[in-house]
Amino acid sequence: MNLNNKIDTYEVAVEPFHADFTGRMFLGILGNHLLNAAGRHSQRRGWGIGTLNEEHHTWVLSRLSIEMQEMPRQYEKIQIMTWVESVIRLFTHRNFAILRPDGTPYGYARSIWAMIDTETRKPCDLLTYADGDILRYVVSDEENVCPIDGHGRFRFRDPQLVRTIDTYYSDVDINGHINSIKYIEHILDLLPRERFEQQVLHRFEIAYKTEAYMGDRLSFYLQPTDATQPDSFDIEVRKNEAEVVCQARIAFQ
Amino acid sequence: MNLNNKIDTYEVAVEPFHADFTGRMFLGILGNHLLNAAGRHSQRRGWGIGTLNEEHHTWVLSRLSIEMQEMPRQYEKIQIMTWVESVIRLFTHRNFAILRPDGTPYGYARSIWAMIDTETRKPCDLLTYADGDILRYVVSDEENVCPIDGHGRFRFRDPQLVRTIDTYYSDVDINGHINSIKYIEHILDLLPRERFEQQVLHRFEIAYKTEAYMGDRLSFYLQPTDATQPDSFDIEVRKNEAEVVCQARIAFQ
Repeated sequence: MNLNNKIDTYEVAVEPFHADFTGRMFLGILGNHLLNAAGRHSQRRGWGIGTLNEEHHTWVLSRLSIEMQEMPRQYEKIQIMTWVESVIRLFTHRNFAILRPDGTPYGYARSIWAMIDTETRKPCDLLTYADGDILRYVVSDEENVCPIDGHGRFRFRDPQLVRTIDTYYSDVDINGHINSIKYIEHILDLLPRERFEQQVLHRFEIAYKTEAYMGDRLSFYLQPTDATQPDSFDIEVRKNEAEVVCQARIAFQ
Repeated sequence: MNLNNKIDTYEVAVEPFHADFTGRMFLGILGNHLLNAAGRHSQRRGWGIGTLNEEHHTWVLSRLSIEMQEMPRQYEKIQIMTWVESVIRLFTHRNFAILRPDGTPYGYARSIWAMIDTETRKPCDLLTYADGDILRYVVSDEENVCPIDGHGRFRFRDPQLVRTIDTYYSDVDINGHINSIKYIEHILDLLPRERFEQQVLHRFEIAYKTEAYMGDRLSFYLQPTDATQPDSFDIEVRKNEAEVVCQARIAFQ
């Protein structure tokens, strides 16, 4: 089977302002590169956001899980490989490999996307949209493995409110929504300096639940994932003291 | 005169997450690209930060002024041209042109840099460092014009405290300093949504005075530039209610 028309690889370098105080790439910047790779992979196959927008549709990111053996360092070059793992009626699963120039992995990522009608805001049936064209590009996990766990479940028991922030101009994207990457930044900012000095960020998961907008007040609730994992934290973000906007898990090693 | 070995041009595209809610590139992202272009231009000529660090020296950005006729939009490609305009004993002036692919200007920028000894933190004499090698690359304003005003002077009379923020993990760079670009984001975030909806950011100036660190509390003081310019604001950023960290001017049109 020829996978060349199904898998794309994009090269990026870790720019100076994209490295944190330990010299490693910020996770939010990596997330941004993954979403760009997803966008370009879709666009090249005729179902990019630009094309969809003309037909009143768009992609919505539902889940993103990133697991890194090592974070790339300043000036290092990385290859981002991306492919569609599966398509079920309302969702598609897209995977990523984050590789060194020699092909060895820094880590992997998994994501789940829905396509919505921008007028009704309802999800579309991907198996029939454009005659199911997307199915032509599916690469099964047997063909190109993504060896990290799938997206977990969150069970918030009694999380503690740890921070409340207002949102401003720099937080929102072209649609006026708080941008998916900014949530990652705000969530990592909940952790103290020592956590990043003494450990490395091993895995990050986020589930986007609903949109927030410029001016919304975001409250961050945190709990340990469970008693057996002292280095893993679950975070729930709520807007305006009510609706859940997203939920995330950060695991250090 | 051959300017080819003196002027570099780098191409970048406006990525989806780098566009604001009006569809135009964030100024902080543009600033990041300018600093990258400066870094690469220096590096190619043997006085990049990497080389300097080996000899216990580094570049410090002192001033940055950006003036745009138009901000590039999402997916547009831009060319960033950069060159050294002059070298005086303790400072070098570096200019930038931000161009469309057809060579017409989006805008221009000016910057001033000092080189410091990282052990003594004292500025170096650029006319003698590496036998004044940097002088070989000077391109005068007659040879390649940068048609925007130089850096202005700030005169703070009675600015009002408009916001105080704590700084976290995402705010700091590899040296542990609050990163130059994050100040631009935090400063633009002081303006209300309507300002960006109704006008365009025409000119931004910033003067970096001293470093702030992760955990420092930053206070933002704002005043109108003067009574005759209702669309221009001066901002002073102080750390821990005391020292001035930077001063900026934002002019809308």
